[in-house]
Amino acid sequence: MAQKAPFKRNRLKEQIHEIIFEADTTLGKIFDVALLIIISASVLVVMLESVSYIQRDYEDLFFVLEWIFTIFFTIEYLLRLYCVYKPMKYATSFYGVVDLLAILPTYLSLLLPGNTHYLIVIRAFRLIRIFRIFKLGHFMKEGNIIIKALKASRAKITVFLTFVMLLVIIIGSVMYLVEGGSNEAFSSIPRSIYWAIVTLTTVGYGDITPQTELGQLLSAVVMILGYAIIAVPTGIVSAEMISADDDHPSNTQACRFCGREGHADDAVYCKYCGNILNEP
Amino acid sequence: MAQKAPFKRNRLKEQIHEIIFEADTTLGKIFDVALLIIISASVLVVMLESVSYIQRDYEDLFFVLEWIFTIFFTIEYLLRLYCVYKPMKYATSFYGVVDLLAILPTYLSLLLPGNTHYLIVIRAFRLIRIFRIFKLGHFMKEGNIIIKALKASRAKITVFLTFVMLLVIIIGSVMYLVEGGSNEAFSSIPRSIYWAIVTLTTVGYGDITPQTELGQLLSAVVMILGYAIIAVPTGIVSAEMISADDDHPSNTQACRFCGREGHADDAVYCKYCGNILNEP
Amino acid sequence: MAQKAPFKRNRLKEQIHEIIFEADTTLGKIFDVALLIIISASVLVVMLESVSYIQRDYEDLFFVLEWIFTIFFTIEYLLRLYCVYKPMKYATSFYGVVDLLAILPTYLSLLLPGNTHYLIVIRAFRLIRIFRIFKLGHFMKEGNIIIKALKASRAKITVFLTFVMLLVIIIGSVMYLVEGGSNEAFSSIPRSIYWAIVTLTTVGYGDITPQTELGQLLSAVVMILGYAIIAVPTGIVSAEMISADDDHPSNTQACRFCGREGHADDAVYCKYCGNILNEP
Amino acid sequence: MAQKAPFKRNRLKEQIHEIIFEADTTLGKIFDVALLIIISASVLVVMLESVSYIQRDYEDLFFVLEWIFTIFFTIEYLLRLYCVYKPMKYATSFYGVVDLLAILPTYLSLLLPGNTHYLIVIRAFRLIRIFRIFKLGHFMKEGNIIIKALKASRAKITVFLTFVMLLVIIIGSVMYLVEGGSNEAFSSIPRSIYWAIVTLTTVGYGDITPQTELGQLLSAVVMILGYAIIAVPTGIVSAEMISADDDHPSNTQACRFCGREGHADDAVYCKYCGNILNEP
Repeated sequence: MAQKAPFKRNRLKEQIHEIIFEADTTLGKIFDVALLIIISASVLVVMLESVSYIQRDYEDLFFVLEWIFTIFFTIEYLLRLYCVYKPMKYATSFYGVVDLLAILPTYLSLLLPGNTHYLIVIRAFRLIRIFRIFKLGHFMKEGNIIIKALKASRAKITVFLTFVMLLVIIIGSVMYLVEGGSNEAFSSIPRSIYWAIVTLTTVGYGDITPQTELGQLLSAVVMILGYAIIAVPTGIVSAEMISADDDHPSNTQACRFCGREGHADDAVYCKYCGNILNEP
Repeated sequence: MAQKAPFKRNRLKEQIHEIIFEADTTLGKIFDVALLIIISASVLVVMLESVSYIQRDYEDLFFVLEWIFTIFFTIEYLLRLYCVYKPMKYATSFYGVVDLLAILPTYLSLLLPGNTHYLIVIRAFRLIRIFRIFKLGHFMKEGNIIIKALKASRAKITVFLTFVMLLVIIIGSVMYLVEGGSNEAFSSIPRSIYWAIVTLTTVGYGDITPQTELGQLLSAVVMILGYAIIAVPTGIVSAEMISADDDHPSNTQACRFCGREGHADDAVYCKYCGNILNEP
Repeated sequence: MAQKAPFKRNRLKEQIHEIIFEADTTLGKIFDVALLIIISASVLVVMLESVSYIQRDYEDLFFVLEWIFTIFFTIEYLLRLYCVYKPMKYATSFYGVVDLLAILPTYLSLLLPGNTHYLIVIRAFRLIRIFRIFKLGHFMKEGNIIIKALKASRAKITVFLTFVMLLVIIIGSVMYLVEGGSNEAFSSIPRSIYWAIVTLTTVGYGDITPQTELGQLLSAVVMILGYAIIAVPTGIVSAEMISADDDHPSNTQACRFCGREGHADDAVYCKYCGNILNEP
Repeated sequence: MAQKAPFKRNRLKEQIHEIIFEADTTLGKIFDVALLIIISASVLVVMLESVSYIQRDYEDLFFVLEWIFTIFFTIEYLLRLYCVYKPMKYATSFYGVVDLLAILPTYLSLLLPGNTHYLIVIRAFRLIRIFRIFKLGHFMKEGNIIIKALKASRAKITVFLTFVMLLVIIIGSVMYLVEGGSNEAFSSIPRSIYWAIVTLTTVGYGDITPQTELGQLLSAVVMILGYAIIAVPTGIVSAEMISADDDHPSNTQACRFCGREGHADDAVYCKYCGNILNEP
């Protein structure tokens, strides 16, 4: 890499890049951890600001912290823009937009002092930054197994969710027909579908409940159904998780004659060229 | 197939059949996707019509859309009847009846203008058409594994559900005896059974809750029981899903020299004696 | 068995025994199915009797049905007593007691006409008879796998439930300390434990909910905990269900020299006596 | 051990130590069971004392029992201190502190007769003693498998819970923005996050429910998501539980003649070359 950077400036760029974007060096790790602590703190401030009686008592403190976070994030954003070779590519990337959205609201509040409610909406995007936590890579190996298992079961889960969707529409419509007349809570099909989802997922708020006897009978059937259905995604993911676990690096022996790998553990002869394999 | 259709008319019939009933050709796929979009749109209209304030504002639009969908579905239904060799068989099949029920209500509304509520009941049958989505066959391979696993575990799940049914009847009766006297919500055994299902499936609406201390103790036992019981269907489906995954057709090739089997699919030489294997 | 019955009377006894107690013969199966239908009907009547407005309208019908069921069950009970070799053993067995309790309440109602509420309590024992359904043995093979898996995981589930019990006591006590002062719903430790069970099992009635912020934070932790904990019994039963499925009859090859079985599929020589095995 | 104790006193110490701290001897087991019964009884008394109407009726009985338990636990604590070689190490250990906290509140109640509410807080520490139940080691083998499986899946579950945490923060913030204005229940982000946890874990109290249509749509998505997500920890633990079950110490014996491994535990002759194996 050093050969590609003949003058001093790029050296600096590269060093900043290594600290900010990578987590391999000690300094890079320290930066990442510090960044995460500041992001978490800024998220905590956004949360606490939303609690009216805390906001009333600590308004000034929150105002100061808000600006400290914003200035820090602004410097970080500018450094990121500076040290990458293609600033536009970063600026238009997912994290680039999120990083910008994290600092914009505070500056906008100067221009639009009254309309703060909508700024909170945008400020909430700062929360997405918290996903940078996964960059730390500490748990990455474990996370990869989960992601791998989920990816492998994606198609099955899509089919399953499509089926659940259709089921929920039908259950909701039937319940609308059964309960709709006498029960205010089932006043429309979308509300009935909402009820069906609440019931089938076993969340069960209880804000909408069947009142007629037929409705209670039907919802009992839906619950028993949900009981059997909940087993499906669990079965899917369990099966994938087990096979993901089984992907241990298999026999690494290579044939001395043809050099090919992938021999079974009990193989005596190379299955590709027929020559004898080394004694394991 | 062309040999079986000596005059022009059947050629047309076959072409329409291929487009409407099959999804192998480009035109057939386009038709299927278009049909699904229209079905979904018609389902959406049925849903929105049930929301009183939307219905009030867009009554005329819904009326027009209703007739557009109905006319489209009528043409589709007639074409289906026309292009199949045995129209009666299609007309009396499951989807044939559903397709008819999807268009009938709108025509009936001309004859019975006042009694629209019952027509909504029939119109809801249109929802079942949405299951045609599965004809697209896009996800079918994945869906088949789920269906296969569910079919394989059908007997076990039936036993399990029978057991849950009996358990729920007994729990409901006991709770009726315990709570029935002092708690209006447990006023009959069927209602108590409804409560038992709501509790055992962990839905927990909270519309019926035990009030006496003995009732709360019993329901705590029921919940802990439900906790252990929920593991059973999940275990059943997981086990089947894993074995459904494992059912790859394994290589049945045997070595001509040593007769041993269990060779990998890409093996050229026998891994036990080193002789060349048959071409697969 | 015929040798043990030298005179005609015992022949009759045996035939009745075969019909009533066994389900191998056609007549025995018919009897079992008929019995189940009558038991189900009698259970249904008990249920419907508990619904006040149905009971009001059909009081006379229920009275007649009650006596028909009771007389039938009485005859059945007497026949059972008659045809077994050791009547006392049957009379004191689990099903013997249940069978007696199923007929006693109706006769007692003649002696104690007023106090019917307590008779319903005893009549509910009739429900337990419904478990005779499992005698039909139709699904028994499948049921046995479930029971086998549950028995194999019994020890693990006991440990798990003990742990959950202790956890629930501690969570309940802590929540009593946190919420007890300000929230009427957490007025005692047993009630708080009831809440902890409702929450940890994800039933979530909502009749008792934390009101203080610390209480809500703690209950959020409890829920996340419950999320992770629910995985444990499922994992236990899944693992057992899979190994119960795997119990296929392994290699049935027996050595020609020592006669011992249990050889691996790829074994060439007997692992017990060292002689060569038959070619599989 | 006897050689290390030349004078009589240490003999006594060791005997007490064996009874109190170990569960290998008959006397040790009797002591452990007796201790558990007394701990359970004392926990039960603490629980019942919290129920106001029971406390009113049995105040004197509870007072006497309280002192009996305290005196017993005091003697036990002093004996433990006496018989260990390093009393300070025990006194500062987890169970040492818990054992002290179990007796302290009753003595403090003599000094501070009025302020009983805070004493209940400390008295609740007695509950922690109940974990001594696990010392019985009766189910330990089974418990170890569970603990082993949970330990093995710890990293994955940490990643999963971190992800759930972030998800819940984002869902809570979005719902605060959507519902916050019109719905009093979503008055702050922390409350909305509490709602998100209640919903995602399918507990579903129903004390906070979305009222706007957009809010209900979003929460339906959250529930469906929770449905898919609940499969992940179950899959993780199932996979680990299965592999924990499979971890039988496999035979590491290799044949002296052909050097091949993988022999069954009961194998006498090598299954590959027929030569006799070493005595295990």
